[in-house]
Amino acid sequence: MKTPFIYRRPIRWGDTDAARIVFTAHYFDICMEAIESFFHEILELDWFAMTCKQSTGTPFVHAEVDFHTPLTPRDVLNIRVDIEHQGNSSLSLILYGNREVEGVAAFTGRFTCSFSDLNNLKSIPIPSDIRQRITCYQQQSSKLISG
Amino acid sequence: MKTPFIYRRPIRWGDTDAARIVFTAHYFDICMEAIESFFHEILELDWFAMTCKQSTGTPFVHAEVDFHTPLTPRDVLNIRVDIEHQGNSSLSLILYGNREVEGVAAFTGRFTCSFSDLNNLKSIPIPSDIRQRITCYQQQSSKLISG
Amino acid sequence: MKTPFIYRRPIRWGDTDAARIVFTAHYFDICMEAIESFFHEILELDWFAMTCKQSTGTPFVHAEVDFHTPLTPRDVLNIRVDIEHQGNSSLSLILYGNREVEGVAAFTGRFTCSFSDLNNLKSIPIPSDIRQRITCYQQQSSKLISG
Amino acid sequence: MKTPFIYRRPIRWGDTDAARIVFTAHYFDICMEAIESFFHEILELDWFAMTCKQSTGTPFVHAEVDFHTPLTPRDVLNIRVDIEHQGNSSLSLILYGNREVEGVAAFTGRFTCSFSDLNNLKSIPIPSDIRQRITCYQQQSSKLISG
Repeated sequence: MKTPFIYRRPIRWGDTDAARIVFTAHYFDICMEAIESFFHEILELDWFAMTCKQSTGTPFVHAEVDFHTPLTPRDVLNIRVDIEHQGNSSLSLILYGNREVEGVAAFTGRFTCSFSDLNNLKSIPIPSDIRQRITCYQQQSSKLISG
Repeated sequence: MKTPFIYRRPIRWGDTDAARIVFTAHYFDICMEAIESFFHEILELDWFAMTCKQSTGTPFVHAEVDFHTPLTPRDVLNIRVDIEHQGNSSLSLILYGNREVEGVAAFTGRFTCSFSDLNNLKSIPIPSDIRQRITCYQQQSSKLISG
Repeated sequence: MKTPFIYRRPIRWGDTDAARIVFTAHYFDICMEAIESFFHEILELDWFAMTCKQSTGTPFVHAEVDFHTPLTPRDVLNIRVDIEHQGNSSLSLILYGNREVEGVAAFTGRFTCSFSDLNNLKSIPIPSDIRQRITCYQQQSSKLISG
Repeated sequence: MKTPFIYRRPIRWGDTDAARIVFTAHYFDICMEAIESFFHEILELDWFAMTCKQSTGTPFVHAEVDFHTPLTPRDVLNIRVDIEHQGNSSLSLILYGNREVEGVAAFTGRFTCSFSDLNNLKSIPIPSDIRQRITCYQQQSSKLISG
């Protein structure tokens, strides 16, 4: 388990708008890419397989981004994904998006999802194997910070 | 000036993902459509003309959505746009997204933008004609609520 | 059945890219909106219900656009949808995108979909009630042109 | 100059729609990513810098995709970009999208852009240094095929 998890994402032409910076809404597409990768690599959880085979999912109940500095296609983002809180069904993540060059803070994101039965969209407890991986990632991350 | 401003938006096939509900990131595209319409119709401000002719813009410094209930292509959204706060340069909006049928609350969004010189991305005071329209809309909205 | 079917679509800020015109890929989102509306209003066919309830769909086998003139957020598109060809399983559409002001031709699109069983993605014959509506629309359109 | 140029692209959750396959319009976003990378790595041409500094661009005059087999988030695409034709101002590319596993053909794309002055959107001749790189890539590609 590599800690911290960093998702590397070059900014592309298609991310921009007529102000020649990344369009507000596209930050959320980029964050969802980072979170999908975090789920896959750290929690070993494939959203698509989970949805199609087990009819369970992790619909988001909250998503927010604070934008610190604008981004253009010359930039590459390094997005660090941290766990803010693990509830019974819910998982809250913090995303730190930094420009690769000089490490300038570009944005901070906060996203909360809720493990759910997709048939009735009722929340379910986080499965125990996923919970263990979340806890493990939290412990390794806290060592990094305190160490 | 029609108060409150409501942006009507049918949910479309292209808004969905494999969980058969609207994809998290697409809510922000939808909210930006609603805000663009609010700026155009209520504040009489055209983002594109403003960007190209005056090199001023309203980049967003914060965007968030709380998701209350999932949406599918059978739904039509009515999105009410309210002003939460008017600062020197910044404008904070609240968006209430309700399903047209039965008026079920679908999401609440909070978006803050900052009037800016796009050449150096420094904030500028909200132009006085825009400020007047914002104040007028706030006053009419408060009458609606108190009345 | 209103003939010809016209989908009206204002160009928005979020459609643009850093060249300050509509981004190439976004034309296809716009065309898919127009086609979804055509299916719904003319063929009385709801992609979402069809997918979820009958597990049948109309995946596209071909999509193309010729771009005649660039578009910006000041423009409103009127997109006419015509039927080019009806096969056993396949349906080919032509889309004529014109600027509302002065009617300047903005793009021509050609899209072919294939009615399919989504369980095995094998093509199925176009259902007879849909076929009748397609034929009816073709007949009314040809009268318009010849008349 | 690595020949052929291959753009590797994992399919993501956000690419899908309610039919649980990649949404038609999203193929064009994916193709534009591949073409942007081809321009950057092979033609040494940065769309964003070109647009902002020289006010020249390569707006697309044609874009099409033939879809051979559906894609899901389990798939990784390898997209090969070949030059179909080099005109005075125009450049036509063919994109072969294959699934990484077993190399199954997923789609074929054909895209034509026109080097243009963005101030008046009139076409300009392909700059000579770019033309040389295009010709070089064509020659190396043809050796690959004939060899």
